[in-house]
Amino acid sequence: MAAAARLVSTTLARSSSLAAAARRPDLLASSPRGFSSMADSIQRSGSGDITRVDEVGLEEVPDVIQNYHLCVVKNRRLDSDTIAKASQMKIIMQYGVGLEGVDVNAATEHKIKVARIPGSTTGNAVSCAEMAIYLTLGVLRKQKVMDTAVKRKDLGIPVGDTIFGKSVLILGFGAIGVEIAKRLRPFGVKILATKRNWSSDTLPCDIDELVDKKGGPEDMYEFAGEADIVGIVDHKFLSAMKKGSYLVNIARGRLLDYDAVFNHLKSGHLGGLGIDVAWTEPYDPEDPILKFSNVIITPHIAGVTEYSYRTMAKVVGDVALKLHSGEPITEVEFVN
Amino acid sequence: MAAAARLVSTTLARSSSLAAAARRPDLLASSPRGFSSMADSIQRSGSGDITRVDEVGLEEVPDVIQNYHLCVVKNRRLDSDTIAKASQMKIIMQYGVGLEGVDVNAATEHKIKVARIPGSTTGNAVSCAEMAIYLTLGVLRKQKVMDTAVKRKDLGIPVGDTIFGKSVLILGFGAIGVEIAKRLRPFGVKILATKRNWSSDTLPCDIDELVDKKGGPEDMYEFAGEADIVGIVDHKFLSAMKKGSYLVNIARGRLLDYDAVFNHLKSGHLGGLGIDVAWTEPYDPEDPILKFSNVIITPHIAGVTEYSYRTMAKVVGDVALKLHSGEPITEVEFVN
Repeated sequence: MAAAARLVSTTLARSSSLAAAARRPDLLASSPRGFSSMADSIQRSGSGDITRVDEVGLEEVPDVIQNYHLCVVKNRRLDSDTIAKASQMKIIMQYGVGLEGVDVNAATEHKIKVARIPGSTTGNAVSCAEMAIYLTLGVLRKQKVMDTAVKRKDLGIPVGDTIFGKSVLILGFGAIGVEIAKRLRPFGVKILATKRNWSSDTLPCDIDELVDKKGGPEDMYEFAGEADIVGIVDHKFLSAMKKGSYLVNIARGRLLDYDAVFNHLKSGHLGGLGIDVAWTEPYDPEDPILKFSNVIITPHIAGVTEYSYRTMAKVVGDVALKLHSGEPITEVEFVN
Repeated sequence: MAAAARLVSTTLARSSSLAAAARRPDLLASSPRGFSSMADSIQRSGSGDITRVDEVGLEEVPDVIQNYHLCVVKNRRLDSDTIAKASQMKIIMQYGVGLEGVDVNAATEHKIKVARIPGSTTGNAVSCAEMAIYLTLGVLRKQKVMDTAVKRKDLGIPVGDTIFGKSVLILGFGAIGVEIAKRLRPFGVKILATKRNWSSDTLPCDIDELVDKKGGPEDMYEFAGEADIVGIVDHKFLSAMKKGSYLVNIARGRLLDYDAVFNHLKSGHLGGLGIDVAWTEPYDPEDPILKFSNVIITPHIAGVTEYSYRTMAKVVGDVALKLHSGEPITEVEFVN
């Protein structure tokens, strides 16, 4: 089944039905029932068919995009050719924070605003933080080896490792990093983090309680030598890491240098790898890097939860209503 | 490879070598190199070959047990026939808290003390708590469906669920429950717990900060209706649980009624099951209950980590030394 881009038309007058509908998690989930559910909801609320929320297969997007005022994209590309056809489009929005798929320059040229829903105000950061901890535990406990043990009827093996007692380095300490640190704190860890700007107005909580050692981007190689588990990493980073340390990436696949990761896994310098994002997506399940028994991968679902979808659907609904009424839109961050 | 019982003879005089050796995690791990590592250690320390730590295959145990003074068992049975042959045995110890495999009455009859290492003083409770959170996240994120998505090159599915916003019921709030609650707290959950005796001297920390709603065993059915995720459960409990709630068991396989669990999974009343322990062990990988896509199982390794093994090895070493010197043994809980 093709992944869908989500298109929301905003000829709606009644606020209650869309707001109610937007809170329903099934409405914007990636199933074909998105449209019918919405229609149900509107008919039930008695406001008539004056709004449309359509879910459209990727291949149909260029043919229908001219009918819509608001577009919500997921992990897929929205290129300049498609954007050029979007003659009524007002806002392109992204679930979560990544906008790599959208040609922002083309949108600007066609006077279309591009916005993202900040992870800190939705369930995205919370969902991604939980996923980072899941991947960390999966790598430490040797998920693949456990699966093999179950199949072979082995018991009490493999001997796993605990988060307890480890040093965790979070590279790029933003909204997700904060949520990870909050949750890791009671596991009994030392937390190191790097961030360009540690001034308090960019962070929502008491950082000194969460982070044991703060640094800038320039400190990442030094910090790498201290950490057992690392959040995300660029290609020069791997050899500075402590032998046997673990690498978890829930950010962008391209942040890791493939050859360097492969070689460090092969040599055993890297103790394990847990990734929700890969170099190309969807990732080839036969790729050699996935053959290492200490590598686990999930299908880019760190932010994909009922909670985050529900919260983001609410934001989309509110933006649609404000776009219609002309009120200022404050829930999202415009990037153009 | 057969799982091994661990046998420690205590004709040792020098304390330093055993204490040092006991801190080495490889010594008591389930590999055949247990003995040679120990011998290395003793020879290096210059004390001569006056101690032996042997790892013995299960089938050999009855033939050699008469040579040993201290025995450490894992998940395996030590029955009355074997115990009867243990003519020099002083103490039988268990890694972790479970002593189901040891015939305590037979040991008492032969004047052998049986002891367990309390989970709260070793890495066991910490390791089990991390595992409970791993299984919870694995069930919420639909681990099996994620694996299938990776193989099929699907992306951004399945839509998982968060721990955030859930109510978690921990049945039997002991050392492991405390560690689970500490770690779950910052995930944004409501924590309900049952325990026979809530008097403060049986618990090591401020319970009111960890638990939102406390009850006795008689409250478990009422609490079941409020909870989304449940720690462990007996057979009458399932139908009282909220529809779509999740069940995680890291305690004993027999605590769950197989037919009831199967039927509640089939009806969808149970939203998912994550188990580290099963009805028989090792568990049949072809069992129908494992065919549900929302069931995950791990090979009884909740407490099996480098950290807990290292900590427990230290306790075993200290007990062996005190057994030899005649000092009182305080690190373990004797059950007979």
